[in-house]
Amino acid sequence: MSRKNAISPRRDEDYSEWYQQVIKAADLAQHSPVRGCMVIRPWGYGIWENIQKQLDKRFKELDIENAYFPLFIPVSFLEKEAEHVDGFAKECAVVTHHRLEKVGDKLIPSGKLDQPLVVRPTSEMIIGHMFAKWIQSYKDLPLKINQWANVVRWELRTRLFLRTTEFLWQEGHTAYSKEKEAKEDALKMLDLYASFSNDILAMPSIKGEKTESEKFPGAVNTFSFEYMMQDKKALQAGTSHFLGQKFAKSCDIKFTDENGDEQFVWTTSWGVTTRLIGGLVMMHGDDNGIVLPPKIAPLQIVILPILHIEEKKKEVLAYCEKLLKALTEKTFNCENVKAKIDSRDIRGGEKKWNWIKKGVPLIVEIGPKDIENNKVAVTIRNSDLKVQFLGLEEFVENIDKLLDKIQNDLYENSLKFMTDNMVEINTKEEFYEFFTPKNTKKPEIHGGFALCHFCEDKDVEAKISEELGVTVRNIPFDLPKEEGHCIFSGKKSEQRVIFAKSY
Amino acid sequence: MSRKNAISPRRDEDYSEWYQQVIKAADLAQHSPVRGCMVIRPWGYGIWENIQKQLDKRFKELDIENAYFPLFIPVSFLEKEAEHVDGFAKECAVVTHHRLEKVGDKLIPSGKLDQPLVVRPTSEMIIGHMFAKWIQSYKDLPLKINQWANVVRWELRTRLFLRTTEFLWQEGHTAYSKEKEAKEDALKMLDLYASFSNDILAMPSIKGEKTESEKFPGAVNTFSFEYMMQDKKALQAGTSHFLGQKFAKSCDIKFTDENGDEQFVWTTSWGVTTRLIGGLVMMHGDDNGIVLPPKIAPLQIVILPILHIEEKKKEVLAYCEKLLKALTEKTFNCENVKAKIDSRDIRGGEKKWNWIKKGVPLIVEIGPKDIENNKVAVTIRNSDLKVQFLGLEEFVENIDKLLDKIQNDLYENSLKFMTDNMVEINTKEEFYEFFTPKNTKKPEIHGGFALCHFCEDKDVEAKISEELGVTVRNIPFDLPKEEGHCIFSGKKSEQRVIFAKSY
Repeated sequence: MSRKNAISPRRDEDYSEWYQQVIKAADLAQHSPVRGCMVIRPWGYGIWENIQKQLDKRFKELDIENAYFPLFIPVSFLEKEAEHVDGFAKECAVVTHHRLEKVGDKLIPSGKLDQPLVVRPTSEMIIGHMFAKWIQSYKDLPLKINQWANVVRWELRTRLFLRTTEFLWQEGHTAYSKEKEAKEDALKMLDLYASFSNDILAMPSIKGEKTESEKFPGAVNTFSFEYMMQDKKALQAGTSHFLGQKFAKSCDIKFTDENGDEQFVWTTSWGVTTRLIGGLVMMHGDDNGIVLPPKIAPLQIVILPILHIEEKKKEVLAYCEKLLKALTEKTFNCENVKAKIDSRDIRGGEKKWNWIKKGVPLIVEIGPKDIENNKVAVTIRNSDLKVQFLGLEEFVENIDKLLDKIQNDLYENSLKFMTDNMVEINTKEEFYEFFTPKNTKKPEIHGGFALCHFCEDKDVEAKISEELGVTVRNIPFDLPKEEGHCIFSGKKSEQRVIFAKSY
Repeated sequence: MSRKNAISPRRDEDYSEWYQQVIKAADLAQHSPVRGCMVIRPWGYGIWENIQKQLDKRFKELDIENAYFPLFIPVSFLEKEAEHVDGFAKECAVVTHHRLEKVGDKLIPSGKLDQPLVVRPTSEMIIGHMFAKWIQSYKDLPLKINQWANVVRWELRTRLFLRTTEFLWQEGHTAYSKEKEAKEDALKMLDLYASFSNDILAMPSIKGEKTESEKFPGAVNTFSFEYMMQDKKALQAGTSHFLGQKFAKSCDIKFTDENGDEQFVWTTSWGVTTRLIGGLVMMHGDDNGIVLPPKIAPLQIVILPILHIEEKKKEVLAYCEKLLKALTEKTFNCENVKAKIDSRDIRGGEKKWNWIKKGVPLIVEIGPKDIENNKVAVTIRNSDLKVQFLGLEEFVENIDKLLDKIQNDLYENSLKFMTDNMVEINTKEEFYEFFTPKNTKKPEIHGGFALCHFCEDKDVEAKISEELGVTVRNIPFDLPKEEGHCIFSGKKSEQRVIFAKSY
C-alpha cells in the first residue's frame, strides 16, 4: 500500500479543512441547496441508523416509550416560558402562510395564518401541553417518552453534522411526582449516553454539570458529556436537563397525589443529535479518512475479490461467497457480523482506498494465490494499513475477538489522548499561556482541557470567553472534591472545572 | 365477559364516529393544538415502528439505501416541474422568516428570507437535485434511495391517520438508465407493498393503475394498491410512480452511457404513510376496538395476574414471570414472541378491557386456580372473547401456531369481505343504483367495489364523481382481459376498472 495520505490537507496542516474533506471522501454528507441544511448520504445515514438502534434498545430497557409530536409549534406556546423563548426566538424558522399562489410566472406565499407557527427547535412546550392532558393521577407517573425527529434552529455559520439548521435527534421527556426522582432521571440518562458512547462509539467523555451561563434555556440544571477532539477542542456531545417545575408550571402539568392533593410534576428532557457523527469523524479519523468502530460501522468487513485473471474469476467469486457466508454467520455485539462483497468493476487500488476512506474496520482481499494458500489478506483500518496474511479458518473463527480488539484499541487511544491533554492549571498566567499557543514554552501541552479552580462568576466567564475563546465545558462529576481558590478571583472553590475551546 | 360493546357508537350505527372512538379508546393518536397535526401516542407509534422495521428489511434486501434530505425546499425548485407545482402549491406550509422578535409582549416574525421555503410535501425536486450531482456514468446506476421522514400537506378537513397536515412516511426514489427497468421498479415496489400488506398487516388489496385524473402530479404512470374498509369504501393504501424522464429533465439528471453518449435517466418514486394505521383500524377493528394482527402488534400477548387473594400474590406473580420467560423464548415471524405482564394496580375488568380495546391478540389471565390446574385462561381478541382454558405446556408449545392462525384468520376474513363486495356492474342504471343505497332493492350488496367497463373519459369521470362521490380507484392488474363496452359511453373497453367511494 502506498504511503501517501488519502486526505489532503492532513490533520496537522488544517484540521478544519481536513474534517470537511474526510466527510466528502467518505460520502457521509454534503451541503444542500437550502442554506444550512445538509443531505445525509447512505454511509452517514447508516451510522445514524446504528446510533438509533443501539440507543433505542437502551431506552426501551428503561420502559421509555417512543411517540411522535407535531413539527409545528404555535408562537403562543413558546411565549409561555420566558427564558425558553429568549433562548430560541432568534433562531426559529417561522411558517406564516399555507399555500403558494401564481402571480405572473412567480409563486407567492398566500393564505396567511392567523397565528404564525414555529418549526420545532425543541419540543418541551408541545410535549408539555400533551403531558398536561395525559397526566391526572400519581398512577400516571412516571411518564417517560422519547421522540426521534428532525428539529430546526436557524444557524448563520454551519458545519456538516456539528452545526446545521436542520438536524436529526432524539428528545426524551419525562415527568415524575418527586423532585428527587426527576433529578436522578436526568443523571441516569446522562450515564446512559456516556456508557453508550464508551461501549458503542468507542468515545470516552467527561460528564459534568454546566455553569449558569451555558445552561439550556429554562432548565434548573443542565448536565453534559464532552468529548476532546484531536485538535484538543471540546465538543459537547449531548445534554440532559433537570427542568424542575418550570415547564410543569408554564404548561400546567398537575397530578393528584396519594393524599388527594394537587401538585405540579417535575420534568426532565435529554437529547443527542447527528452531531455525534461529526464527533466520530474528529475523534477517530486519521489522514486517510474516517475510522469506524466496529460496533457502529454500517459494514464491519468488506471482501474484495481480485478478478484480473479471467479464468480464475468464477473460483475467486465462489470463494468470496463462501467466506461471506462463514463471516456473517458469526456474531459480534449480539448481532450477525456485517460483511459484503464489493465486486464492482473498478480498479482494485481505487476500490480499496474507497473503503479505507469510508473507515470500514476490516478489508479482506481474496485472489487466486490466497485461495491456494488457504489465507486471507487482511487490512485493519485502525493500523498502518499493512496487509496481514492470516489463515482462513483462524480468521473466521476469531473474527469477534479481532473486531473487539479494534473497538477497544480505538477507545483506549482516545482515552489516552484525552487524559494526556487534561492539565491542572493553577494560576491565571499559566491559564492564558495554555490557551495562547504562540506564547507557550511547551507547545506539546498547549490547549486541551484546563482543570482549574473557578468561582463561577458570570462576568469572569464572559471575559475569558471574549479574550481567549475559551469557556467552561462543565463541572466534572468524576473529579475528587478538592478545596482551592479560583485562579481568577481568588475566591474559595470546592472543585476544579474544565475550561476549553470548543465547537 | 359481559356482552356490552366497548366502543360506542357501533360500526353499523356511525362508522365514522366509531373510527374516532376506536383510536381514542386504544390510545393510538389524538388531535394536537396545531390544526390538522396529530400526536401519535406510544401504542400507535409502536405499530408504526413495526411497519418501518418490516418494510425497511424488505427495502434493504433490494439494495435500497436510506438517506436523509432537507425538510425545506426552495420555491424555485418547485417551479421547475409545472404539473408537480400545480399539484402541491395549494397545500404548502411556507417558511418566510427565520426568527421571532419581541414587540411589546408579542413575538413577531422577523428576518425575512430572500426566497421563501416550502416545508416538503414530497421530495422529488430536492432529491432530483442531489441525484444530478451523484450520477455521472451508467456505472452509478441504478441508484435506489429511500427516506423515512415527515411531510406536510396543508389539509382543510383532517382525520387522524387518514388525512393530516403533517404525516410520517417513507419515500423511495430511484434512477435507472433504461425506461423498462424504471417501469419494472415502480411495479416491483407496488408488489412489495402489497405483499407486505398481505403478510404483515393481514390486509388484502387490489393492485392496479390510476387513471389520468387520479395520477400523482408529474407522473407518467401511477400505480396504487387499494383496500376495502368495512363500510365498503376504498382507501388508497399507497402508490408507486413511474416518472419517465420528466423529473430527470426538470432536475437535469444525466448520465454518460456505455457508448459515451449523454442521456437523461428514468426515475420512479413510491411511498406509504401513517395512513396504513388508519386502514388497519378500519379493516380489522370491531365494536370492541382495534384488532391487531400479531405480526404488526407492538405486543402479542399480555399476561394479567389475578392478585385479589393477598397470600397468593407472590406465587401468582412468580408463575406469570415463568410463563413470560417461556413465551418470549419462543419465536414468531423470525423474532422472539412479544409479551408482557400487566400488574398495574387497577380493577381486573377494567384492565382486561383496556387491552381488548388496544387490540392485543392474546390476553392470558392467571389466578391461583389456574396454577393449581396447570391451565391458562386465554382470550383471543379476534373471537367472541369467550375465555378458553388451555393446558399450560400445550399453550406455550404451540404459541407460534396460534398466532399464525390469528394472523391468517384476519387476512381470510378481510379477503372474503372484499371479494363478497366486489360486484360486476354492466349498465349505467345498475351502477347508479349500486351507489345510491336508498334506491337499491338489494341493500346487502349496495356499495363496495363496482367492476365496470369504462372508456376512461375524464369528463364522464368528473360527472360521476360529482353526482355520486364515486371515482375510479384503479385499473386492476389481476383481472382477466375482457372485451366490453363502457357502461357510460358505449365505447369499446379492454378490461374492467374499479369504481368506489373512497376516503
